Amino acid sequence: MKATPLKGTRDYLPGEVLVRDFLQNTILETYKDAGFSRITTPILEDAVNLDKSEGGENLNLIFRVLKRGQKLEKALEGNGADEKSLSDMGLRYDLTLPLSRYFANNRNELLTPFKVIQMDRVYRAERPQKGRLREFMQCDIDIIGEAGADAEVDLILTTTKALKRIGLESFKVKINDRRILKGIFSYAGFGEEEHEKLAIIFDKLDKIGIEGVKAELLEEKFEENSVNKFIGLFEEGSLTLDSVSGICDEECVERLKYIMDTAGAVSDGGFGIEFAPSLVRGQGYYTGTIFEVEAEGYSGAVAGGGRYDHLIGKFLNEEIPAVGFSIGFERIFGILMEKGYRIPDQKQKIAVFYDADAFAEALKYAEGLRDSYMVSVLKRPKKLGKFLNKLEADGFDGFAVYGEEDGVKMFGRQ
Amino acid sequence: MKATPLKGTRDYLPGEVLVRDFLQNTILETYKDAGFSRITTPILEDAVNLDKSEGGENLNLIFRVLKRGQKLEKALEGNGADEKSLSDMGLRYDLTLPLSRYFANNRNELLTPFKVIQMDRVYRAERPQKGRLREFMQCDIDIIGEAGADAEVDLILTTTKALKRIGLESFKVKINDRRILKGIFSYAGFGEEEHEKLAIIFDKLDKIGIEGVKAELLEEKFEENSVNKFIGLFEEGSLTLDSVSGICDEECVERLKYIMDTAGAVSDGGFGIEFAPSLVRGQGYYTGTIFEVEAEGYSGAVAGGGRYDHLIGKFLNEEIPAVGFSIGFERIFGILMEKGYRIPDQKQKIAVFYDADAFAEALKYAEGLRDSYMVSVLKRPKKLGKFLNKLEADGFDGFAVYGEEDGVKMFGRQ
Repeated sequence: MKATPLKGTRDYLPGEVLVRDFLQNTILETYKDAGFSRITTPILEDAVNLDKSEGGENLNLIFRVLKRGQKLEKALEGNGADEKSLSDMGLRYDLTLPLSRYFANNRNELLTPFKVIQMDRVYRAERPQKGRLREFMQCDIDIIGEAGADAEVDLILTTTKALKRIGLESFKVKINDRRILKGIFSYAGFGEEEHEKLAIIFDKLDKIGIEGVKAELLEEKFEENSVNKFIGLFEEGSLTLDSVSGICDEECVERLKYIMDTAGAVSDGGFGIEFAPSLVRGQGYYTGTIFEVEAEGYSGAVAGGGRYDHLIGKFLNEEIPAVGFSIGFERIFGILMEKGYRIPDQKQKIAVFYDADAFAEALKYAEGLRDSYMVSVLKRPKKLGKFLNKLEADGFDGFAVYGEEDGVKMFGRQ
Repeated sequence: MKATPLKGTRDYLPGEVLVRDFLQNTILETYKDAGFSRITTPILEDAVNLDKSEGGENLNLIFRVLKRGQKLEKALEGNGADEKSLSDMGLRYDLTLPLSRYFANNRNELLTPFKVIQMDRVYRAERPQKGRLREFMQCDIDIIGEAGADAEVDLILTTTKALKRIGLESFKVKINDRRILKGIFSYAGFGEEEHEKLAIIFDKLDKIGIEGVKAELLEEKFEENSVNKFIGLFEEGSLTLDSVSGICDEECVERLKYIMDTAGAVSDGGFGIEFAPSLVRGQGYYTGTIFEVEAEGYSGAVAGGGRYDHLIGKFLNEEIPAVGFSIGFERIFGILMEKGYRIPDQKQKIAVFYDADAFAEALKYAEGLRDSYMVSVLKRPKKLGKFLNKLEADGFDGFAVYGEEDGVKMFGRQ
């Protein structure tokens, strides 16, 4: 049998789980205080839903669950069995698709606008490499049934508050709108049918620079005049909301201004919020506002999201507006641990040692200490001194020996 | 696309998740106060580990994950592809196998005895029917590396304390030892090789009665004299620890007495603990003590567990003693909800309504209320009265209208 976990999955040690639980609870409480409600959905989803979900690249990363019994036998008859015929369900790759299904399934029992929290595991068959997990946590809030820009403001303020509470200090929100991106593409002379491919290449701007983007666009045979006009817009210095307002849909620009002004006014300068015309975000289901959070000391985004007004409609006969913001929990957890994160005001943990004939009494003694401490009752080991070193290394804060009168002794940790 | 969740899986509504989180946190805090540490393991496990795990009937209920890419192509070449060749990992069916693997993988970083908490989802491809879930929560504590009976006492006291804290009132612990069961089988004259099949039939005692067991044993062609001797033991009235002490291994009987006496002394009569010679428990990996908790108003067990001294050894070159106790969370949750469970001392939730031009100010006003309430900021709907009814039905406790001077008004709920 194999003792190591599968590639891309992780065992978490007790000290790590303490921190993970604390961070998740802090995020959850922040979200609940802001009036959001938590739901849970199954990790298993119907393959039909997963495959039709416009998840972009993620659709190639779905773990599929094998059919069973007669269904499997039938799928294996003759030739031509493949991934899709052998499987009718899979592990979810994000929490947005299950949420959309959930809303369609339960809408009669939900208050609209539905302000919802999800904190749970998702799965992607990423190529195993350092830092790439195949099983990981996402922490999402979404507002369903509100088309107005106030939903975006609410999400931005609530997500940034959670990030602050878990210890992120210096960060900024980057914001764009898919329709502005499309407006710029059209202004440069590209056709609508080229937008998706353009977006994928333009999304690499941070990695390959504006010259790299230009080279790749020309290589991909986009029309040279349009490429030059497009690149020119970004070469001359950063585009501002004012400078794009002649190019794009005016209402869209006003909407972004409102979001930035309102979030800025309420946050009192606690974080920067800036227009980022080169922000793309990968998922195909985004239809309007898109945003990301960048933090000092973290490469790439620590949170991201956007508006997806068409996804829920796929489950219903009507369009339902929706917008969501997701915290990249694993990346934040990883960096906080590297920095030696310590949980504030953690209840202290001690051991109570007993001799073989005094277990019942030691248990009662320990029970009396449990209002103040987490207490583990342990047989007194032969070499107590050596064992105390192990206790301290394991995160215990002190110990007592039942029957000795000097009570609880704390380790002299700084 | 399909709005309903897959058969045997569930969407949980906000009010349900509030209760689930509260119950889980209560159990978790009880376990932490008793000195146990939480870990997490992946939901995906290597197929080799799952298949060799002696999980009894559960091994037929494993959800297997399809191989991908070239591995899948290779598995499909020629004929003879089957469940096992098409898959090299699966979803765990319990938390004990992953824990055993975890201990083997991480033992150098763990304090022994390792007192460990797991609260997480497991998967079984049960035939869909009312109340049978294919995805469900288990709440386990285990003690690894302690062969002595004090480990059993610790688990019994800690598990029953958690059950009390989440609202179970009248319950009892039933306890047995696999070796006593085997001793009785041998005493009746059955051979060692018959024990497993005997145990499976005897496990049905609660459902089919002693006469049903007898009939089935005879039907299965067990030797008539032995069947009569065996059934006779149980017909004469319940077997006591004293009455089996001549039949079974004496040390084993003394050990059970110690566990019952010590747990009884510390719990101060908070629950009954009784010897149950007909208790079997399904898993093949149990080697010694086995136990269950029965509660008034709950059919079947609400918690169960036992000692599995050989399972971890399968991952290592040495035997490691281990014992665990698992709370049947879903069954308890289901019955508490039917009884109209209410969370004690829950922070109250209110809505703050605003008019279109006052969002930023309303957000600041709401922020000032968040020390006392969970506050959701909502656009004032056209028909406020009607919407307030919906709010109340959704579990809100009150509301305020920003800009009106009468502040927070609570709904007059009993």
